[in-house]
Amino acid sequence: MAGTVQLTLSMSLDGYITGPDPSYEVPLGAGGAERLRPGGRPELAGTILAGTGATVVGRNMYDHVRGWGEDPPFKMPVFVITHRPHPVRVAGATTFNFVDAVATAFDLAKRAAREKDVYIGGGADIADQALRLGLVDEVNVFVEPTLLGGGTRLFDHLGGDPIDLERIGVAEYDPNTHLRFRVLR
Amino acid sequence: MAGTVQLTLSMSLDGYITGPDPSYEVPLGAGGAERLRPGGRPELAGTILAGTGATVVGRNMYDHVRGWGEDPPFKMPVFVITHRPHPVRVAGATTFNFVDAVATAFDLAKRAAREKDVYIGGGADIADQALRLGLVDEVNVFVEPTLLGGGTRLFDHLGGDPIDLERIGVAEYDPNTHLRFRVLR
Repeated sequence: MAGTVQLTLSMSLDGYITGPDPSYEVPLGAGGAERLRPGGRPELAGTILAGTGATVVGRNMYDHVRGWGEDPPFKMPVFVITHRPHPVRVAGATTFNFVDAVATAFDLAKRAAREKDVYIGGGADIADQALRLGLVDEVNVFVEPTLLGGGTRLFDHLGGDPIDLERIGVAEYDPNTHLRFRVLR
Repeated sequence: MAGTVQLTLSMSLDGYITGPDPSYEVPLGAGGAERLRPGGRPELAGTILAGTGATVVGRNMYDHVRGWGEDPPFKMPVFVITHRPHPVRVAGATTFNFVDAVATAFDLAKRAAREKDVYIGGGADIADQALRLGLVDEVNVFVEPTLLGGGTRLFDHLGGDPIDLERIGVAEYDPNTHLRFRVLR
């Protein structure tokens, strides 16, 4: 049986996944690293890595990732959504594949993941597009106890009809709260 | 001992407290009444009414309230923030007082509430201003399992520095999740 497409991320109560002015040097923006820490949270990293067989990222996220050196931490097939064609790039245990349509990227990622899950590595635009296209099975939000007041907002370009969810789990960590939802279709 | 200022509301996972195109006839906007139901939720109504001694609302919210007739359900002192001076209006068990500054409205509401809590009746702009001014003690969000994709967004005009919170409670209702936070200062 095929795995599921998981949107998993750390978000402030006001819906930001970075603080203001994110950049290559400060990817989580002003105040973001201390308050969102997606990579530094064992519970989040564990949720992402357990059972993940492939990752989909946008081009901007890939450009960040290139700075991670010759052996990026993915160690799985990664599908990069970009309009610029690019040959497959192997970096350590990670294989980067370049695909020019969101739906195709997820289709290839699900096949590559086999029975494991597909992780959406971001950014927010890719996550929103995948939700709108009905490609996401579960939404895992780690709600951080802060109002960032600015930054990159998730769910900011959904538009269209409401997308209804079903809560399938709640877990309390220190200091964040994991809300787990299934996307209803 | 004085009570606390409580921001309590029902919000979609993408941060909306109404659906798209709210109006006098459809105050919760398209799809909002079915998905947000702040007045129709016993757990939310209970949280609001238990121990509330005064309410602060913005002028637009008051204009909605006027449609509720001669005995509005507040049955307590209500402080309306408006630049237009207006004499006190008594409607059944509710007294409407008109105040032209946000901080003054909360100050008067806390005195009127005595040992009870002050409830922020909305709209979103008044809630954001109260948070930014440091007037809110607790944030109670009932997270509804839906992505509305549009409407009136809470926490949309906070700006400024991050406002850090401390989670003080989580409760699972069907179908929403109550996240309770203390505002750190």
